[in-house]
Amino acid sequence: MTIAHDAFDRHVEERLPAWLEELAAFCRIPSEASNREALGEAAAWIADRLRRLGARVEVLEREGAASLVIGEIGEGRTLLAVQHYDVQPAEPLELWTSPPYAPQVRDGRFYARGANDNKGELLARIWAVEAYVATVGALPCRLRFLVEGEEEGGGANLGLYLDANPWIREADAALIEGGDIDVDGRPRITSGVRGMASLQLSVRTLAYDAHSSMAMLVPNAAVRMAQALATLWDDEGLPAVAGLDEGVTAPTDAQLAVLATVPESDTDGLLEVYGVERFLGGRSGRAALRALTFEPTLNVQGLWSGYTGPGGNTITPAEAHARLDIRLVPDQQPEAMERAVRAHLDAHGFGDVAVSVFDYQYPAWWTPPGHPLVQAAIRVSEAVLGQPVVQQLSGPGTAPMSVICAAHDLPTTSLGGTDDEGRAHAPDEGIRLDYLAAAVRMTGRFVDEFAAIP
Amino acid sequence: MTIAHDAFDRHVEERLPAWLEELAAFCRIPSEASNREALGEAAAWIADRLRRLGARVEVLEREGAASLVIGEIGEGRTLLAVQHYDVQPAEPLELWTSPPYAPQVRDGRFYARGANDNKGELLARIWAVEAYVATVGALPCRLRFLVEGEEEGGGANLGLYLDANPWIREADAALIEGGDIDVDGRPRITSGVRGMASLQLSVRTLAYDAHSSMAMLVPNAAVRMAQALATLWDDEGLPAVAGLDEGVTAPTDAQLAVLATVPESDTDGLLEVYGVERFLGGRSGRAALRALTFEPTLNVQGLWSGYTGPGGNTITPAEAHARLDIRLVPDQQPEAMERAVRAHLDAHGFGDVAVSVFDYQYPAWWTPPGHPLVQAAIRVSEAVLGQPVVQQLSGPGTAPMSVICAAHDLPTTSLGGTDDEGRAHAPDEGIRLDYLAAAVRMTGRFVDEFAAIP
Repeated sequence: MTIAHDAFDRHVEERLPAWLEELAAFCRIPSEASNREALGEAAAWIADRLRRLGARVEVLEREGAASLVIGEIGEGRTLLAVQHYDVQPAEPLELWTSPPYAPQVRDGRFYARGANDNKGELLARIWAVEAYVATVGALPCRLRFLVEGEEEGGGANLGLYLDANPWIREADAALIEGGDIDVDGRPRITSGVRGMASLQLSVRTLAYDAHSSMAMLVPNAAVRMAQALATLWDDEGLPAVAGLDEGVTAPTDAQLAVLATVPESDTDGLLEVYGVERFLGGRSGRAALRALTFEPTLNVQGLWSGYTGPGGNTITPAEAHARLDIRLVPDQQPEAMERAVRAHLDAHGFGDVAVSVFDYQYPAWWTPPGHPLVQAAIRVSEAVLGQPVVQQLSGPGTAPMSVICAAHDLPTTSLGGTDDEGRAHAPDEGIRLDYLAAAVRMTGRFVDEFAAIP
Repeated sequence: MTIAHDAFDRHVEERLPAWLEELAAFCRIPSEASNREALGEAAAWIADRLRRLGARVEVLEREGAASLVIGEIGEGRTLLAVQHYDVQPAEPLELWTSPPYAPQVRDGRFYARGANDNKGELLARIWAVEAYVATVGALPCRLRFLVEGEEEGGGANLGLYLDANPWIREADAALIEGGDIDVDGRPRITSGVRGMASLQLSVRTLAYDAHSSMAMLVPNAAVRMAQALATLWDDEGLPAVAGLDEGVTAPTDAQLAVLATVPESDTDGLLEVYGVERFLGGRSGRAALRALTFEPTLNVQGLWSGYTGPGGNTITPAEAHARLDIRLVPDQQPEAMERAVRAHLDAHGFGDVAVSVFDYQYPAWWTPPGHPLVQAAIRVSEAVLGQPVVQQLSGPGTAPMSVICAAHDLPTTSLGGTDDEGRAHAPDEGIRLDYLAAAVRMTGRFVDEFAAIP
């Protein structure tokens, strides 16, 4: 039994006002990482909501971790919906038109912290199930909501939860937390995410900061760090670390065919956005797009040593630190990046510079662009929005899809209704009401498509 | 007429309890740079105190600057006493045994912020004049107190005040703000201070921070800064900037003879203090001491770029900054250092890295170690403390003596009673009561010696 689109869509239209009240209630909970009470409240709220949907719910707990809420409904082939109830901090508050935790609808958009990332998309999928059950009957597949509370922090707890409860990973496919719609109204279907290696470099040259009158005699940690860091890139600013490409697989013909559909201007337009004359290595057009898609990065996100406050302070710093993030492509392993940077520093005479992991690490997870799951997402998105899909091999960002999908080699795709003006992570985050309804309709159609995959 | 040492010293002994009450009153004023009201109160307090001494007082004002208090007493040859009424911030407050602005005497030491640097030394010189007038009569010279309120910040206002009031500089010699006594009770007579060039390097590679998923295409400011900085030192960590030694004069025989009196262990002992195996360039003993005395420094005091807070934040930084302090020796000019660094960066392909002055700049100011003024300070210090002097060509730190002395080529020397355990700039700053009395006695004897210089 598949949905009758008219009946389903009418139900969505009728219910939307009540649903928005529900989204407002969820978004009033300031579930930022620093607010443990609000995180607990948000976990309880979504567990209760899933129970009201008719789902079998488990709230998993770990010492020191936010709860992981699992809600499962339906029988048959299993689709994981990967979601989260935590939100980015709302600061700077003064840049919000309406307060972040006092939701408001203006000009067809619902504004609140979390409206876009990820409370709106999460509820849209729950509403889709509700509408399906109301207008069709039992789901044609099993939908397992995996709703975590530490997505924005990206810690190790998700993997630990799943290792301790391996049944959660037993599924046939996974939906990325939402989906994009570009400024022209074209759905963007993304079937992969990058991985991440997070390395901190640290060096100590002195027992403690010296008065800088000693600078002609004692080693300066800032100088040592600058000299070590400088060797990690060539004069063009391109990575010069042997082994940084370890594990990188060559693009497939199918991937290259997808890439060929993206206009070059999409990448070259970024020159103007960032106010730069040329990309690193002088690349442009297709070459830049290819690098953006298939090359790992080696990025300094922060560098610090000594006194950095107002005025001056004449010290010779004892310590210096730099944080590197390395965005991985298939099939690179984060541990190999740590080894490569370590070996590079040793080979260049910087054995005194320590390398450690400072934040989350996981491999990339890409699904072949022609996979039936991805094609199903493309079909339902085009059908609901009436616009051709823009296909993307991988989002620019990272997400722990490999932590969820690798054990059983689950294919994955994006699907949803957030748009490029939705300001995720920024002030005035919001979601368009029509796209929120579209997300519900896409998901309703998608469960039928998913159940029918041969 | 010269002082009768017994009568003078008895007067000091009798008056000391009352003087300590006075020092306590002065030290209760929290005249930190950030507290404009307290700065004004301290300026008024010291102006009033100088008036009560019988000095002719002028309180000079400049828009946006702390007042400069000038107090002059006596006739004849003119000695400038270079002092200040501002103090370093008292933070961290929790490390003080008694509160910084609630003075307390414990175990023969007077504790308060400013007790050592410079309120104690300033009052000791005023008390010396008072004792001289009480026990001898009119001063045999003119003593001109120059008491500034921005010494700890080291800004440009002192030079501007003096340029506008050139009569202040018209003198015959200048006393540095105080004098040291080492842990063995030996007076340390210092006849010079280093100069300073303060340069900030800044680079911008992007209009604003990029998401680090763009890192394979857009230039990273932290990388650029690391690569530029790395070229400023060689692999040993020694400066590699041509022209950094511009203006450096060769040591004189008299200077080398003074240096030969310093035990090598004084310098080599610093290896253990700082936990380093060797000094830069493998120097030790006499070579290290010579470098410490005669070499300019090139120091990074602070380096920063991108996100440096807790956790991580995946950005590609648009800006990076480094602050350099360069401690100058005679006869280097700060402006030449800026030119040398600029030329170095240009020659190494870093024309995009901007160089600017971020803090105070002035040349060094050294008086020949055999100068009669210095020899007079040595004689009175040895006489009062009964210990041989340790002579030092220049303090390791900087002070704007050249701003005061260069116009009329004034000789300068230290003289006073702060000790190596006095914790200037740190919690539990204090001054020993016996050394405070010794400073008064030294100064009383010194005015006679100064008046008698042929």
